[in-house]
Order: sequence, then structure tokens, then C-alpha cells
Amino acid sequence: MTIRIGIIGAGGRMGRAIANAAAEAGASIAGGIDREGAVHGDYASPAALAAASDVLIDFSTPDALPASLDAARAAGKPIVIGTTGLQPGHHALIDAAAADIPVLQSANTSLGVNLLRALVKEAARRLGSDWDIEVLEMHHRNKVDAPSGTALMLAAAAAEGRGATLQELSRFDRISLHPHAREPGTIGYASLRGGSVAGDHNIIFAAEGERIELGHRAENRGIFARGAVKAALWLADRPAGRYQMVDVLGL
Amino acid sequence: MTIRIGIIGAGGRMGRAIANAAAEAGASIAGGIDREGAVHGDYASPAALAAASDVLIDFSTPDALPASLDAARAAGKPIVIGTTGLQPGHHALIDAAAADIPVLQSANTSLGVNLLRALVKEAARRLGSDWDIEVLEMHHRNKVDAPSGTALMLAAAAAEGRGATLQELSRFDRISLHPHAREPGTIGYASLRGGSVAGDHNIIFAAEGERIELGHRAENRGIFARGAVKAALWLADRPAGRYQMVDVLGL
Amino acid sequence: MTIRIGIIGAGGRMGRAIANAAAEAGASIAGGIDREGAVHGDYASPAALAAASDVLIDFSTPDALPASLDAARAAGKPIVIGTTGLQPGHHALIDAAAADIPVLQSANTSLGVNLLRALVKEAARRLGSDWDIEVLEMHHRNKVDAPSGTALMLAAAAAEGRGATLQELSRFDRISLHPHAREPGTIGYASLRGGSVAGDHNIIFAAEGERIELGHRAENRGIFARGAVKAALWLADRPAGRYQMVDVLGL
Amino acid sequence: MTIRIGIIGAGGRMGRAIANAAAEAGASIAGGIDREGAVHGDYASPAALAAASDVLIDFSTPDALPASLDAARAAGKPIVIGTTGLQPGHHALIDAAAADIPVLQSANTSLGVNLLRALVKEAARRLGSDWDIEVLEMHHRNKVDAPSGTALMLAAAAAEGRGATLQELSRFDRISLHPHAREPGTIGYASLRGGSVAGDHNIIFAAEGERIELGHRAENRGIFARGAVKAALWLADRPAGRYQMVDVLGL
Repeated sequence: MTIRIGIIGAGGRMGRAIANAAAEAGASIAGGIDREGAVHGDYASPAALAAASDVLIDFSTPDALPASLDAARAAGKPIVIGTTGLQPGHHALIDAAAADIPVLQSANTSLGVNLLRALVKEAARRLGSDWDIEVLEMHHRNKVDAPSGTALMLAAAAAEGRGATLQELSRFDRISLHPHAREPGTIGYASLRGGSVAGDHNIIFAAEGERIELGHRAENRGIFARGAVKAALWLADRPAGRYQMVDVLGL
Repeated sequence: MTIRIGIIGAGGRMGRAIANAAAEAGASIAGGIDREGAVHGDYASPAALAAASDVLIDFSTPDALPASLDAARAAGKPIVIGTTGLQPGHHALIDAAAADIPVLQSANTSLGVNLLRALVKEAARRLGSDWDIEVLEMHHRNKVDAPSGTALMLAAAAAEGRGATLQELSRFDRISLHPHAREPGTIGYASLRGGSVAGDHNIIFAAEGERIELGHRAENRGIFARGAVKAALWLADRPAGRYQMVDVLGL
Repeated sequence: MTIRIGIIGAGGRMGRAIANAAAEAGASIAGGIDREGAVHGDYASPAALAAASDVLIDFSTPDALPASLDAARAAGKPIVIGTTGLQPGHHALIDAAAADIPVLQSANTSLGVNLLRALVKEAARRLGSDWDIEVLEMHHRNKVDAPSGTALMLAAAAAEGRGATLQELSRFDRISLHPHAREPGTIGYASLRGGSVAGDHNIIFAAEGERIELGHRAENRGIFARGAVKAALWLADRPAGRYQMVDVLGL
Repeated sequence: MTIRIGIIGAGGRMGRAIANAAAEAGASIAGGIDREGAVHGDYASPAALAAASDVLIDFSTPDALPASLDAARAAGKPIVIGTTGLQPGHHALIDAAAADIPVLQSANTSLGVNLLRALVKEAARRLGSDWDIEVLEMHHRNKVDAPSGTALMLAAAAAEGRGATLQELSRFDRISLHPHAREPGTIGYASLRGGSVAGDHNIIFAAEGERIELGHRAENRGIFARGAVKAALWLADRPAGRYQMVDVLGL
């Protein structure tokens, strides 16, 4: 039976890419809504859309997340969350929802970035603390959050490889009014914005005389959309719980 | 007759590189001082060093600049300034000194960066404002100012190409607590720090579907030191005034 | 009046991109043919297609070029040629056709690459011959010619900046059975193929201790298609002659 | 007791870097020879140098390797081989010598490249054959072999990750007179030469819509020299056998 996907955030570029990827994968679109209301079909609320869908995909905004989770939970439907810019409070809501329904949240649904994540963790684990870690990313001119959710995800993998947390190692004040040298053992960030770049990420390990650079380039949003649809089809018949892309991709 | 160079900031890595470059170029080192006092020879103050030199090279810190300029002016000796992190007040002091002595100030004394500057200005002039401009740089872990002086120099060339000033177009708050989209027509900055990187710079012009990237990589400080010594030898018999590397390099 | 574009090579990815770009630009598609025959409309030969079009765009193969030129010439219609892998014999045919009709041939119809060409020529002109020139490009896995036509176009600009020709300076035997050092003053090439890369080019100038890198990245074929349509509309009312993208883009 | 290192190939840039690295590491230089004879000390032949050394380091040419191995074997001394451009015949000689003495041969003695090798193997193992593998490297203008020994070492790791050999997957004819598409499952190579580049390597995995790039940059030869000296000190008291850098670095 064809799986029916409901898209939250259907009006943006990612929404259109998901509709295309769903068609490619042989899934059907139950409908799509946006801040403004229905985009595909005639479901005016997340709750109505959830009732008519087998699984939801949400690529909207952090503000919209509570309503998406409530709708999925009320209807007992799985949900894939690709929204970035989430704060600790959002993650607490996701954990709570995952007690009742299957939830997969990922800052990046591409195969390549998820493999890169494993390589970054391994490199950080093996290289001593005399290798400085820096995270560089570039995205299109309209992206509002910086660093990107994927940059933070990759930095978290590096921190994990060093036996620490993202919060402990991250420093966001490179460019500031007060000149200061790099603090040993920390992770620094640099974000570029311009044009229509779908998403480039580079994790740099720099030591005396040499550098290792582990990077990923996305040519277009299609890879994220295909990954999200793959995740949705995979999630459709799982038990309640919180999942990651690595579970889907079989890496 | 051999030209005698006095080095201010002689104790750092750049100081040693300048001593080597001077030897390569057939110049002699009159002496060198640092925050701590004499490094080469036995001149304890900038004034004593200036008196014993034909030309000064200063790669120290912004705080030390007023004393360097006073010493050069009192002794009537030319001075090359490669110190970065200068503020408008420092530039006013340089302009005042240039009324009496030859002064060449540059954030980057390499041939390559000075050519890049010309190319960046040309590209900015020809490309419409739908091409976003971003400046990326990476330097070693001990550099305290960000963005680098060279990054600002290249951004100033881009701004000039667009008929505006660095101050008007620069935005330094990419990574901040308040998510915000890129403002059209502005210049953004990203700085990486790690290992022993001598200096990489990249100016990115990004439009819908395409990017132009104009970059420079320095393998070591030797290129800056050779450029500074070349500038010092060139400056030794000029009239008072303020000069740029482009005057020296014949680009 | 709407300009009718005829597409030769309409079945490939570029053909579809041109059809989209023409629609965006408000032009109409007279029809399209391919090696196999009609793709859009029902014109079975280049001659029939030329008769029904105001201007032709050819992104097919070098083998198909003579028939395309003959058809355009017989019908007295302008033609834009974006086919790569052309040999000197093809250029002679284009020159002959340009005596009778307007012809614009370019290995790359994007704005960015055509600006890059000007910057590369300028850099080569200003930098001495102790700066080695290397050309790097990456394209998708199905591209059959290497180096790319655009790589050769950019190398020709570098050669011109040095007062020489592409033929004189090009060396294609870097990877060979006979180990050999780089010959001073020459231009070397490196080609990468993989995935779906639309086209990346990098011109590297390398000297002792420093490098300048001038690069262009195309995210998708849309930028070439839009440039080709822009060229076709511009060419529609020109007199006979051979034109370049720089004439169209007003750089 | 201070370990005495004998350097074969002592006259080149790597020879000088090894002498510096040995001094830094507290080892002494027994002497150094070159094609022309003694460079440090007064040992005119590899045999005389081997007799006076505790361990040998050879960074010369493939032609000189048989004499180096004979000398090490006759004197019963360990030898580190960093020479690149070795052919299967050279490897057979190394294997034979390793029956009697400890031999460590590596195309690259840096920590970073040896970690990269592990990451490349892992990535190749996990990514399906729809990810094309390409190897890019850049070295200084005087390097005569292409692709570099390190490029081949990294490609061998990728091939191993795919359960194949370097010979089976390598294709060296990208730039040839006969246009041809990329053959699925193969590994392609691209080599750049220019300036004084110590060694950049990039392994690219390219699929539909995305790329993973795993790279290493060496700023100078110091990292190779320090790694070779570290290997020599480690090798000094091992039993006979053939070793790799991974054994030394504890990665």
C-alpha cells in the first residue's frame, strides 16, 4: 500500500523538494501545510494533516515544532524532523513525544554528511589535543541561523570523540571586540552566507605544519529531501522511540 | 653601500624571518628590539635603534606603534609597518608621520596578496550587487585579531570596487544570538584559527547557481619577510610620504 | 514578438535546462532535435528546425556541428554553439559560417566563468614566469572530453596574458610512464570526474612560498542554459560575424 | 645513549630537514651521503655510512635503493625508506632485506596522512560503488613522479576498503587522445605541480548530488622529517621485519 506523507513547511524550497522526492520514491503526498495554511490538499491545521497522513515530515521553523509534535502525537503518527536552529527546550519536547510515537530528528538527512559524522568522531578520537578543531560551513543567503545545525552536529561528533560535550568545547566569539588567542582544546566556528549554496561543511584539524580537512558538499536540496523521504518510509512501521539517520542509512 | 635595517618586534617569528630575508637580500641588520629590550645588537630603545639604522621595519603590536613612529620621525628615517590590528587612531598617527618621513604601511607585504587585491577590486566592480561578497581567512592558533588585517584590506578593495567604504559594507555579527538573514550588498567575514597556518585568504562572490572564489595561500612567513625587506630597500631613498606595497612591487 | 528558439541536442540534460531557461526568459521553443530525431515538435532534421526557428542553440556533439552550421546558414538564422571538445577543423567551419550568419561559440556561457577569464588573463600578464600556471577542473562522471572546454578557454586566457598561445604553453603528459619535472613557463592540466558535478574550475598560480587560486563553481546546468538563452536573444538581430559571451554579458 | 642516524640522500631539501629534525629529537647525525658522495662527515659509500650509524634514513631515488639496502643488510642496521616512485621490483628487494633487518618503508611519514589513510579506507568500505573515487594531489615544481607515492598509498587504502587492489581499480588515462567516460568502480588521478608546495592530497568521493572530500595539507617538509626521525628511533631496537608508519604512530 502506498504510504501517504504529510509535509509541514510545504511552501519553502525544501517542501517542494520533498514533494518531488516522494513522487520519485513511489510515495503519495497526503497534503502540505505552511505558516499560511494549506499548500497541497485542504488540511488547514497540523492536526487535520496528521490524521490524513501515514507519516509526517517537518522542515519548518523551531516555533512551529510544538504544534507539529502535538499533532503527530494526538494522531499516533511517526514524524521526521529536519528543522534546524533547535534549542535544548525543543529537544526536551522531542524526547517527550518519542515516548508515544516514533520520532527521527536530524539536522542533515544526507548519506554523505552522516558518514562524515562518523569519520569526524574517529579523527577527533585518534588525534591528540595538539590538533585544533575548526568547523566551517557555507549556505545560501536566506539562511537565518549560524552556525548551521549540521555544523553543530559535526562538532558534537568531534567533541564526543574527545570525550567531551558540544557545550564544553564550543566557542562562538572568534570575531569580537576583544582580541584573544585560540583557547587550547576548544572548537571554533566560521559561517559563510551567499548565493544559493545548498550546504558545504568542512571540519579542519590543524597541528604544527599540517592540516586534515574532512568536507561535504551538497549540490542541491534534493539529497536532503530524498534522505528525509527514505527516513519517513523507514519510520512508518517502527515502534515509538527517538531515531537517527544512521539507523536508516545502514552505515 | 649596505643598507642597515633596524627591526622593531625582532623577538617574534616575523622578526627572525626578517633577519633571514635581510641577509638573503644583502642588507645588514643594524639591530633589533622587542617589548623586552634588545634582541640583536645593544640598542635599548626605538630611538637608539633608529639612530643606528638606515630604515626601520616594525612588525610588533598596535600599542608599540606610537613609539616606533616617534623614533623614526626624530631620527628622520623611513619606516615600514607590517603590524596588524591597527585602528583609525593609528592611521592618523601614520599620516602625521608621513608629512616628515617616508612611511609604508601594509597589512600584507606579499606579492600574491597585493595582486589579489587588484583582482578583487576588479571583480567587485564588474559583478552586480546580486553577487554576495564573503571574506574567509585562516591563520595560526596564536593570532589574536580577527578578521585578519589582510582580510580587511581585501574587503576594502571589494568595497572600493562597489563605490563604497569598508565601514559601510562590513557586517561582523554573522554568528550572534539573534538569527538573521544576510543583508543584501554587505560583506561578511569568517575567521579560522589553528595549527601553524601562515595565512590563507579567500574572497567569495556568490550568486544564484554559481560562485567565484579568489584566494591566496602563504606557505610560510618568508614571503612576508622578503616583501618587507624589499619595501625597506625601496623606501630608503624616497621623499617623505605614505606609500603602499603596490608602489614597490610594480604590479 | 516572441523569439522562437530551436534546440539541437535537445534530449540531453542541457537540452532540458535550455527549454526551462527559455520559458523563464519569455522565449518560445520552436522545437528540438537530437541524434535520434525530434524531441520537441516534429522537425526531423536540422534544416527543418532552422526554417521554423528565429535562432538556434546547439549543445550536441562535435560530430553534429557541420550539419547544424549548414542548416543555420541555409536558413539564414543565427546560431549559439555551446558544444565542447571542438578541434581546429570545427573552428574553421565556424569562421566560414560567420561570413554569412551571426555565430556565437563559447565553451562556457555563464557570467562567472567569463569574468574569471578576464581575471586570469590579467593575473598571468602581471605575474612573472616564476609563477607556474596549473588548471584544475571537475565534472560529472559522464563527461567524455578532458580537459574540459572551459579549462582550455581559461588556459588560453592565461597564455594570452603571457603573450603566447594555448598550443605553445600546454602540456598534457603530467601523468605518464616517463617521470619528468615541470617545464618552466608551461601550463599543466588536471581533470577530475565523478558524481553529478556541473562544473568546477580552478586556475592556480604557484610561486616560491605562495599560491593564488582563481576558481569558479557551477551548482547546476541552469546557469549555462540561462546564459545560452540570453546569448540567443541578443544574437537574434545582429549582423553576420563571430561573437563571444563577453559581448553579450557587458562585462 | 644518543642514537646515530645516517642519512642517504642528505644533499636534498629532505636531507637538510632530517638533519634539523634529528637535532630537535636529541639524536646525532653519524653522517650523510648523496649521489655526489659525502655531505655530512666523510663516509664515501653507503656501506661506510651504515657501519658508522645505528640506523639509516633513505630519502634518495629508486635507483639508489638497492645499494642502500645492501649496505644496511651487510652492517645489520635498521633502515627507514621514504623514497617515492618505487616499482614492484623495489618492493621485492625490501621484502628480502626485511628477512634480516628491520625495514620501515612509507611514501609519507606524517601523522596526518597516516590517519587520513585509515579514514579513506573506512569511507570506501561504507560507501556503495555509486560513489566515484578520485585522487588529487599537488606538489612543488621539481617533483618528477606523478601521481605521488602518497596519492597511490591513499588510493590503495580506498581499493582495500572496496575489497580490491590498487592495480585493479586504478586508471591513469583521464587526459588522453581518446575521449571516454569514467568507468564505474575505478579510481582516477589528477596531479598538479608548481611552486614550492610541500604536499597536498585530497580524496574525493562523488555521488549524485553530493561529495565527500578527505584532505591533507603539509605546510613544509618538517613534518615528514620529524616522522622519519621518530620512525628511525622507534626502529632502532626492533627485530627484523617490515614495518609501517601506523606501527610507529600508535594511531
